[in-house]
Amino acid sequence: MLPKVGSYKFHIESYVCDFQGKATLPIIGNFILQAATMHASERGFGYDEMSESDAAWVLSRLSIQMNDYPGYDQFLTVETWIEDVARFFTQRCFRFIDKEGKTIGHARSIWAAIDMQTRRPIDIEVWRPELKNFIDTEKECPIDKLAKILPVRNVEPTMGYSVRYSDIDINKHMNSIKYIEHVINIFDLDVFKKKMIHKFEMVYLAEGGFGDKLKLYRLDSSEDECLVDTKRGEESICRSRITWK
Amino acid sequence: MLPKVGSYKFHIESYVCDFQGKATLPIIGNFILQAATMHASERGFGYDEMSESDAAWVLSRLSIQMNDYPGYDQFLTVETWIEDVARFFTQRCFRFIDKEGKTIGHARSIWAAIDMQTRRPIDIEVWRPELKNFIDTEKECPIDKLAKILPVRNVEPTMGYSVRYSDIDINKHMNSIKYIEHVINIFDLDVFKKKMIHKFEMVYLAEGGFGDKLKLYRLDSSEDECLVDTKRGEESICRSRITWK
Repeated sequence: MLPKVGSYKFHIESYVCDFQGKATLPIIGNFILQAATMHASERGFGYDEMSESDAAWVLSRLSIQMNDYPGYDQFLTVETWIEDVARFFTQRCFRFIDKEGKTIGHARSIWAAIDMQTRRPIDIEVWRPELKNFIDTEKECPIDKLAKILPVRNVEPTMGYSVRYSDIDINKHMNSIKYIEHVINIFDLDVFKKKMIHKFEMVYLAEGGFGDKLKLYRLDSSEDECLVDTKRGEESICRSRITWK
Repeated sequence: MLPKVGSYKFHIESYVCDFQGKATLPIIGNFILQAATMHASERGFGYDEMSESDAAWVLSRLSIQMNDYPGYDQFLTVETWIEDVARFFTQRCFRFIDKEGKTIGHARSIWAAIDMQTRRPIDIEVWRPELKNFIDTEKECPIDKLAKILPVRNVEPTMGYSVRYSDIDINKHMNSIKYIEHVINIFDLDVFKKKMIHKFEMVYLAEGGFGDKLKLYRLDSSEDECLVDTKRGEESICRSRITWK
């Protein structure tokens, strides 16, 4: 059996860097998805195996906490492992390691397996009992479990966008990470010069599709905390909380 | 001396694929930039060496012609070499090779070296005479040289966008490839289901900066050809021609 923890190395190309030469948060998100995809695939429950059963993994919650971001031309190692499997959800954790071997961040994610026809969740414990064999009970992920994110009400939308070609992923739905890119695009460059995103939490509530007109509602809940609610009409598609440092 | 042709291999991760599981045109553009960056860097005229002289390479024209796009989890090899150096411009070509070793496309690009303070072009032949040693006169790039792209006039803008955080690159200007992403976002998903972008040509005329409000003017010049003019007010920032197949 393969080890419980998978480890994947990514090179920070110039085109994944922001104006300060650091990998952006959405890129860390892409690495998370890629590491999860490879870890699952190598262990027999990846994209191909899921597709054969007309099923897919859907990201339900994501929380990323970074103390630093890797810079241009550096390498970032992403470790991932399964923390828990409970009926409709699996919890997967991540550790980010810089070129010197230092831990620079962690992430937690919650995934549901859905039936592609009905788009309803599948009982993972019944459907894929072998997943439990990969749970790593030793490995610790020292960031808080995702707390509730309140809806943003009684404010005007900060920004709006239509879901376009570049937002749609291989599963034909809005790419989970593209929501994050649109969320952090509400901030001025000056904000990124003064501080960095220390923690980013996201709850996915509904799926956006091509042509949807989405609006972003922003609430600065404290000096270093901001809530952003992405809505289609009155319906929240996803809610995020940003903690600056 | 290093060989004149540089060869770089890229893995097609899920997050660089579109809804049909193929790498997108902007991703091919990113690979082009990355291959050019590495080729230049290895030969002593890359980002770091340029920065030391307070100079930078700026993309002036780009033409990409693809007969196929690499799919998810495949590898794409990008070859690049210098075709010509003439005073203010260098011409760099690219060949794209799929996992079976088949050529699936080519690209041509024209670059200027600019002084970062004055933002004016530098005479490359005087400033970096050694660049001429890398010109490959043998290697052929079987796609047409970039023809003029006419401005689009007398039409209403199709789409508009503001330049945001995710558009700005490590050189603190709008990323050359992000313009392409916004341009191809004007098309409906159905268009991509019926045909593919066979050729994409771009002329860069001015630099977009953070907060700029840009508008896209579209002219379908024939059934399989479309011109898109990206403007800031009355000024063209870049002009593109798309040929479908």
